[in-house]
Amino acid sequence: MRKYETIRTELNGGVLWATIDNPPLNLIDERFVGDLIALLDDTQADGDVRVVVFRSADPDFFIPHVDVRRIAEYTTVAATSGGPDDISLGALYRRLSEARPVTVAVLEGRARGAGAELLYACDMRFASLERAVIGQLEVGTGLVPGAGAIQQLVRLAGRGQAMQVILGSDDLDGREAERIGLVNKALPDEELIPYVGRLAARVAGFPEAAVRLAKRRINAAALPLKEDVQVDSSLFQILARDPSSGARIGALMQRGLQERSRTELDLGAALGEL
Amino acid sequence: MRKYETIRTELNGGVLWATIDNPPLNLIDERFVGDLIALLDDTQADGDVRVVVFRSADPDFFIPHVDVRRIAEYTTVAATSGGPDDISLGALYRRLSEARPVTVAVLEGRARGAGAELLYACDMRFASLERAVIGQLEVGTGLVPGAGAIQQLVRLAGRGQAMQVILGSDDLDGREAERIGLVNKALPDEELIPYVGRLAARVAGFPEAAVRLAKRRINAAALPLKEDVQVDSSLFQILARDPSSGARIGALMQRGLQERSRTELDLGAALGEL
Amino acid sequence: MRKYETIRTELNGGVLWATIDNPPLNLIDERFVGDLIALLDDTQADGDVRVVVFRSADPDFFIPHVDVRRIAEYTTVAATSGGPDDISLGALYRRLSEARPVTVAVLEGRARGAGAELLYACDMRFASLERAVIGQLEVGTGLVPGAGAIQQLVRLAGRGQAMQVILGSDDLDGREAERIGLVNKALPDEELIPYVGRLAARVAGFPEAAVRLAKRRINAAALPLKEDVQVDSSLFQILARDPSSGARIGALMQRGLQERSRTELDLGAALGEL
Repeated sequence: MRKYETIRTELNGGVLWATIDNPPLNLIDERFVGDLIALLDDTQADGDVRVVVFRSADPDFFIPHVDVRRIAEYTTVAATSGGPDDISLGALYRRLSEARPVTVAVLEGRARGAGAELLYACDMRFASLERAVIGQLEVGTGLVPGAGAIQQLVRLAGRGQAMQVILGSDDLDGREAERIGLVNKALPDEELIPYVGRLAARVAGFPEAAVRLAKRRINAAALPLKEDVQVDSSLFQILARDPSSGARIGALMQRGLQERSRTELDLGAALGEL
Repeated sequence: MRKYETIRTELNGGVLWATIDNPPLNLIDERFVGDLIALLDDTQADGDVRVVVFRSADPDFFIPHVDVRRIAEYTTVAATSGGPDDISLGALYRRLSEARPVTVAVLEGRARGAGAELLYACDMRFASLERAVIGQLEVGTGLVPGAGAIQQLVRLAGRGQAMQVILGSDDLDGREAERIGLVNKALPDEELIPYVGRLAARVAGFPEAAVRLAKRRINAAALPLKEDVQVDSSLFQILARDPSSGARIGALMQRGLQERSRTELDLGAALGEL
Repeated sequence: MRKYETIRTELNGGVLWATIDNPPLNLIDERFVGDLIALLDDTQADGDVRVVVFRSADPDFFIPHVDVRRIAEYTTVAATSGGPDDISLGALYRRLSEARPVTVAVLEGRARGAGAELLYACDMRFASLERAVIGQLEVGTGLVPGAGAIQQLVRLAGRGQAMQVILGSDDLDGREAERIGLVNKALPDEELIPYVGRLAARVAGFPEAAVRLAKRRINAAALPLKEDVQVDSSLFQILARDPSSGARIGALMQRGLQERSRTELDLGAALGEL
């Protein structure tokens, strides 16, 4: 298996531990998107990888959100993954959801915006009770979630909770994320990795055809239509070109967005104060 | 903004606090239906109203249910709102779900039957841990929920819970309503209004286009088909003309239905004793 | 009402208590399938039975899973129930979901595989906090759930939890089953039967047409498509003829599968150790 610039990998008994390590903040940029595509290509072909567990090398951030200065660049790279009619992150996340390996995300820091949408695209999600933070910040910055959150949150949590998470653009801790169904389970830090490791090893030891077909049937019943995510993605892109979202993001940048600042650590609160 | 007979309103920073005040019990009658239509018309046109928060002026009742002596009258008024092929409360509640402002319901007393269905039609719902009571009483009186509860409860809580709430026709407190997903969150009285006020002010301060488009996309993914609610509404109307429901409602009226009686306060229990 | 070989029945005020009693372990075999079909035929015709409550005579097992030595036999019997194009347990469970009486399952022991799928097919499910165990063991034995679990778990618990329950093939206790929505409620043993009995009596006392129409409308909104369950069933049958599932089931049989053994009592753990 290749080495990646922004994802450290370690294969252990059929389980690929994939640690996102894209300093300074694990923002989504063209390097990370390229690596995620490569990792999906590699594990699709390599039958030894039965389960992929995504973690973060940064104790504060899983993925805070996209790098707002690199949207054109990462979108160009994402376009090399999907078909010609869909070049969005949403299409890449669809590939992640349909990947041959089973995918598990471990959330020990902050996942917001397209970072949270990466979580929803995985097959299962587990959160630290002490440190997980999850949120959709788009509406608070004049955008809409464009890579699956609208469709996935309605399915995982229902209309009322989807409205609150998306329209409120606020941060949820692990306990709340578990309560409304955004993560499979929230666990104390000391139990989190053992719990996920045991589950991953278990699935990796089960017959491959059964795992693959069961996942495929669950996806057939549960994944949103690609067309619906494409509409969301189009609205994101239209609003991203609107001056009002540019003004809000500019104001946040002046307060430390995309730096290890209080604004970025406590973005839910910062959006309420704009 | 107009004054309404049965809804007191106060606009504060983009948030319209709309307090239902239709003595003696906040039953749904033609006056309230007319006011709800007017309020939807007014806020659809008035861009200053970004969020509507529904409360009740009655500490015991949000909306106990429809006024069973005024079904013909309020249905006639509701017919002035929808198109010619759908004159039900369900069609009016659909308009509520699709309203331009974001809608939030605060449940501090009893909401049953079409009163509970008004809650489900709002975008979000919050309940008092001490005082909220929610229930679908229709089956216990020989009817079926006709204004959306069947479709909404399946989506919010799943088939098993929808069966229990609807077939059991019993009262749930705020804690149970939260547990099975009927409300976003149940909170102690002293935290409830501050929590909702903060959320409402937050959403009211976010860019209008983003809020509106996000709500529209969530609705597209989450709202039931109008046709399904129409079928439920037709069954309600057929059963409402059946002598068996008339007999049960008559027996309840003799025991104090539509009065501030033990029967009305504790209607779940009263239905079990008929 | 007929007597059945494997189901003891007692009718009390419109509630038929149906206790599954098919020693030694309540495995699903052709006798039980025949009796379930007969019970559905009888209660469909007998208006006196308003609610059926399924329990188990075995304190350890509700239904552990199908009798793996009797798949051909019970499938032949199941074929006498459905139409000519669907002879699976899934089709029989569909009949259970659409039965005229309201159906309630009480889980006080283990329900796994097609035993758990029988639970999901009922209208409501209640579990003992002390003794309930629920799980889908199929993937761990090289199969996929073939009688509805894939479709039902996605609807009851969402994609992430369905992935974990099905791909993980592990045991859940009553508390976890309640948390993720697999059962309506988990209760202490001393409260469980009184709670269910009160609910069943309540529903049995409500007007028959209202109960029947409400159930029908909830089913129309909530049941999976028959075609989707048929695909799952076909995959189950294909994998059941594959040597790899045969080898795993053979290894489990050597360790006491289908006996009152530690393997059967603690099957989730046993699958992890294969």
